[in-house]
Amino acid sequence: MKVGIVGATGYGGLELIRFLHNHPAVDQIDLFTSSEEGVLFSSKFGHLITIVDTPLQKIEYDTLEKFDVLFTSTPSGVTSELLPPLIGKGPRLIDLSGDYRLKNLASYEAWYGKKAAPSHSVQQSVYGLTEWNTELIQQATLIANPGCYPTAVLLSLLPLVKERLIDPSFLVIDAKSGISGAGNKPSQTTHFSEANESFLIYKVNTHQHIPEIEQALSMFAHVDTTITFNTHLVPMTRGILATSYAPVMPGITEAQLITCLQTTYEKHPFVRVVTDANGLGTNRVKGSNYCDILVKVDSRTNRATIVSVIDNLVKGAAGQAIQNMNVQFDLPQTTGLDVVPFFI
Amino acid sequence: MKVGIVGATGYGGLELIRFLHNHPAVDQIDLFTSSEEGVLFSSKFGHLITIVDTPLQKIEYDTLEKFDVLFTSTPSGVTSELLPPLIGKGPRLIDLSGDYRLKNLASYEAWYGKKAAPSHSVQQSVYGLTEWNTELIQQATLIANPGCYPTAVLLSLLPLVKERLIDPSFLVIDAKSGISGAGNKPSQTTHFSEANESFLIYKVNTHQHIPEIEQALSMFAHVDTTITFNTHLVPMTRGILATSYAPVMPGITEAQLITCLQTTYEKHPFVRVVTDANGLGTNRVKGSNYCDILVKVDSRTNRATIVSVIDNLVKGAAGQAIQNMNVQFDLPQTTGLDVVPFFI
Amino acid sequence: MKVGIVGATGYGGLELIRFLHNHPAVDQIDLFTSSEEGVLFSSKFGHLITIVDTPLQKIEYDTLEKFDVLFTSTPSGVTSELLPPLIGKGPRLIDLSGDYRLKNLASYEAWYGKKAAPSHSVQQSVYGLTEWNTELIQQATLIANPGCYPTAVLLSLLPLVKERLIDPSFLVIDAKSGISGAGNKPSQTTHFSEANESFLIYKVNTHQHIPEIEQALSMFAHVDTTITFNTHLVPMTRGILATSYAPVMPGITEAQLITCLQTTYEKHPFVRVVTDANGLGTNRVKGSNYCDILVKVDSRTNRATIVSVIDNLVKGAAGQAIQNMNVQFDLPQTTGLDVVPFFI
Amino acid sequence: MKVGIVGATGYGGLELIRFLHNHPAVDQIDLFTSSEEGVLFSSKFGHLITIVDTPLQKIEYDTLEKFDVLFTSTPSGVTSELLPPLIGKGPRLIDLSGDYRLKNLASYEAWYGKKAAPSHSVQQSVYGLTEWNTELIQQATLIANPGCYPTAVLLSLLPLVKERLIDPSFLVIDAKSGISGAGNKPSQTTHFSEANESFLIYKVNTHQHIPEIEQALSMFAHVDTTITFNTHLVPMTRGILATSYAPVMPGITEAQLITCLQTTYEKHPFVRVVTDANGLGTNRVKGSNYCDILVKVDSRTNRATIVSVIDNLVKGAAGQAIQNMNVQFDLPQTTGLDVVPFFI
Repeated sequence: MKVGIVGATGYGGLELIRFLHNHPAVDQIDLFTSSEEGVLFSSKFGHLITIVDTPLQKIEYDTLEKFDVLFTSTPSGVTSELLPPLIGKGPRLIDLSGDYRLKNLASYEAWYGKKAAPSHSVQQSVYGLTEWNTELIQQATLIANPGCYPTAVLLSLLPLVKERLIDPSFLVIDAKSGISGAGNKPSQTTHFSEANESFLIYKVNTHQHIPEIEQALSMFAHVDTTITFNTHLVPMTRGILATSYAPVMPGITEAQLITCLQTTYEKHPFVRVVTDANGLGTNRVKGSNYCDILVKVDSRTNRATIVSVIDNLVKGAAGQAIQNMNVQFDLPQTTGLDVVPFFI
Repeated sequence: MKVGIVGATGYGGLELIRFLHNHPAVDQIDLFTSSEEGVLFSSKFGHLITIVDTPLQKIEYDTLEKFDVLFTSTPSGVTSELLPPLIGKGPRLIDLSGDYRLKNLASYEAWYGKKAAPSHSVQQSVYGLTEWNTELIQQATLIANPGCYPTAVLLSLLPLVKERLIDPSFLVIDAKSGISGAGNKPSQTTHFSEANESFLIYKVNTHQHIPEIEQALSMFAHVDTTITFNTHLVPMTRGILATSYAPVMPGITEAQLITCLQTTYEKHPFVRVVTDANGLGTNRVKGSNYCDILVKVDSRTNRATIVSVIDNLVKGAAGQAIQNMNVQFDLPQTTGLDVVPFFI
Repeated sequence: MKVGIVGATGYGGLELIRFLHNHPAVDQIDLFTSSEEGVLFSSKFGHLITIVDTPLQKIEYDTLEKFDVLFTSTPSGVTSELLPPLIGKGPRLIDLSGDYRLKNLASYEAWYGKKAAPSHSVQQSVYGLTEWNTELIQQATLIANPGCYPTAVLLSLLPLVKERLIDPSFLVIDAKSGISGAGNKPSQTTHFSEANESFLIYKVNTHQHIPEIEQALSMFAHVDTTITFNTHLVPMTRGILATSYAPVMPGITEAQLITCLQTTYEKHPFVRVVTDANGLGTNRVKGSNYCDILVKVDSRTNRATIVSVIDNLVKGAAGQAIQNMNVQFDLPQTTGLDVVPFFI
Repeated sequence: MKVGIVGATGYGGLELIRFLHNHPAVDQIDLFTSSEEGVLFSSKFGHLITIVDTPLQKIEYDTLEKFDVLFTSTPSGVTSELLPPLIGKGPRLIDLSGDYRLKNLASYEAWYGKKAAPSHSVQQSVYGLTEWNTELIQQATLIANPGCYPTAVLLSLLPLVKERLIDPSFLVIDAKSGISGAGNKPSQTTHFSEANESFLIYKVNTHQHIPEIEQALSMFAHVDTTITFNTHLVPMTRGILATSYAPVMPGITEAQLITCLQTTYEKHPFVRVVTDANGLGTNRVKGSNYCDILVKVDSRTNRATIVSVIDNLVKGAAGQAIQNMNVQFDLPQTTGLDVVPFFI
């Protein structure tokens, strides 16, 4: 397989390279950029010396059409223009940006503050939450790879909401992310001396992943609800932990919630339901495509606490994108992704 | 004033020393320990060389009785035995442990798993949430200094619950703390290589600060409720950020919530109501006795997000203890505590 | 005293504010900027809400002339133009930049790559290494406050070189700094995700503090030598540790080196000679104006290892600047600076 | 191949598991412990749930003899007793501890403070610095895998010393390590709140890797010298950066030093000679088996600065051990180790 990556210099792009380098079905990886044509990739990223000593290439449709798979890992507002002419032209398109996730164009424009992609292209796109959309992903020409927060949240909540074990009308989701989620562009917020040794809340009630989560709850669990969702920055590089809260439906027990999760994911290698309540942390999945999920019911309040952890750059971005590619090409989902988490 | 500190080698003790060193009304600081009598304090803590070159002293009632103030900063289960004979004997007692916070002894024993202090001593103790209990603190012989999480949570929630602006029947509190909250005793969880670069949840629905928060909601806001409360460890040393969620009462606006907070705290120098929604982080209060509070109402859900930040070792422990001492001795509350937050 | 700060929004400026806020001889602090006139300072720095709610002022000579002390904490190349008209006009000038440190203008231009300040103004300036230049500092109109690295290095090496106890002809200085030393301007190198969890070397053999150290060795120890000096970035915010290596002169013992350091600094409150060889770290001086120094002789090689630690923003910048102000106004050197190091 | 790991619960053991899990020639990995027989490995290390759900086994010679390779990753003083009976009995023995590195038993006992292994077993052992000892490694029954610091130092210095391009009589080596180098056992020094945000020096002139480096300089570069070597702890988990200083031999240029390094390693996939002087950091090799080396000559002093970076747990421990196993079994050295560094 020949693979192209547009937006290779971002963290999503770097993680794609890290995994595709060891993917047995991938023969060739070409890297594309809007502005640094001809620059040797390893001259920008010293860790890739002797590994990726190829130049960045100019984005041209003639070239892009020839790949088997094209990953786009660009800021929002880029692929809404770039990809439409490529749909159906040859390469499977896997877009890591938010441009094709929201079916409601007005919603996209309201939450992202950008012009939406053309309607027909958005309608053709398939939401790439691998474990929940495998069949459509297999056929898709254009995959909208899920956001990092939605991946962590949805994998943990969808089974419980779908089976009506928890009450979706009062969902509170408190999410925390490492700073790599903010991308590779320097800013005051991500300046080391100001981000280090501080934990902060940002985009209070206004994060653009809110409509994505609500859409997926509707799509996969057939529940239309309005969620409370907030995001925080943790002074570490990788990892998302989402803590979700919901009332448990009358008569439902903690054991039933656990069983529901276990049953849902028993054939899915990357989702692990864990039961040791204390100490579930992001280091359990660091560098890997795993999503670990814990659920506990507080008997004092009859509310469930649902916790999930992922590596935001892997299951939350590049890893899930490759998992989707594997699905499309009838490869085992773990191909090229079967790595042991770092832990330390 | 002559001041004694029992448990000086813990982080609470070290912070007491840091602030009392510059307190204009304090002439003498004596340090006590259960096990290292005679050891030069600066030989244990190199940062105190030339500053605190005094030896640790043996805990003896004859000696302890002679202080004007005695701070105890010990693990739970110590002062329940140590302090009763000292009540009313001379020194004002300010206990930073959890032993005198819960009026319900059975509740203490259930949540702490230890034997409670004698009933009469617990009933005499005054809960030291300075801004909410000033009058009783002034007269108190024994102050139960609040826990770090309860301080952050209560300062932000009490005004809104008391005025019935938010619905206390569905309070979800998601709290995050730096690792110094776990104290100075090494463990696998706080071992650098395992705590670093990981964000984790612990004591799911079982943290001993839950009954303390519920008791204070009852005591100061006259509401009996059962809260959902969870705690997380952030890979940083200092700081707590608590994100609380509650439905807003019908007809109540965000502006009313903000006004309520501002009115409550307008004469309290250490509580600051802030309005810049993005980027409220723990570095705004680092090293200081401030508590910063933000409230936002999500018009989509009509739920409030209430955020508060403190330095867990200062307003959450030693700083508030000294603030209480100031109240007791008719000093301005800011005496010895008027420091600028570190920020970086 | 009325104090002005030009460059208040940088980290040097913020630290000046942190200490001057508690300085008993300072009544008024005005903040100046080249570009944000009228902006409320606390609207830029949330940690200063209720503490510094004054606006940034325009830089105008008429205004600047009226202060008792004017601190300038600006990038190199700014005060070389700004300060000459103010010399002798009223305020004591304390410049935290590198513009007035090097007496040799050609050297400045070679190492800094900028135009030097006018010769007469440079000649009038006094190098503000407080412990070594107290008398001249007292009289100075313009103080060139030392660089952060030179402060750590010189305080530890000057006594030993001056007394010819170590051989200055083979001085190797390996210095490490927290990232706040790079200032507050975001860059790829200081972007959290790339600076975090990495230790790097930078400006190999080319750091502009090299001629400053060599000049001071000549000035205070009367030795002209060429040093080897390298700098590294540590993934932490504050702190410098410098490890220096030199052959010990024939017949000289470790005890003599220690005695020399102790004798030199016995009346200097901010320099502490320590003897516990293991575990000397930057947290021993964090947030304070102390410089801790350790010397060990390796009997296998007869070479000395000399270690010193400072907080780069305090003794390496704002703290020493205020210490110099204290000297100029006949105040005890510790005035406003007598704080306990943070340790944690 | 069947592989056994003794000391699997340490960080060296965990890294062996991480790489061996993806090693195409390894069919079976058994884990051994001295004290936790029968404990499910994933119950101790949550990140390994579904990946390593096997129990820890009791250390018994009958069992150990049946492996093709036996890795021992234990504290010093363990394998000196454990391994002698296994020499020549079947498994290739690869010892990650320091017990077999020093040929001089008295030196081992002096620097390690423990009883040395039996002389005949030490003499049979082969020092496993892969790039420098390939032939002997191929035949070895017992490999003494190098220490983390020596690996970083020797790979960068050996070519230059061997070719007499730098003067070995004044070698100063200033090394810095992430905290995982201290192992997995909690201590005050590695307690998060005390290790975080501090950079410290430890074991001044007394680190047990000193004789190992000197022995290797003698063995491979045929120079007997006494080095100056110091070690520091960096507040990060992984990575070593060593900065070495030496006078350049008369007439030798920087270009010759670079060429020497390039020529030495041109056929060695894991050693990369880099030339971008600024910003060489440990994140360039994080999680990988690479060692990156930089050399610069300071024309002012005619001294060389030689910098090398490795991941202490990979090239400094588990990675090099597997590289040695590959050599022994005639596999390409990169087998199972061909991973892209993490960078972020």
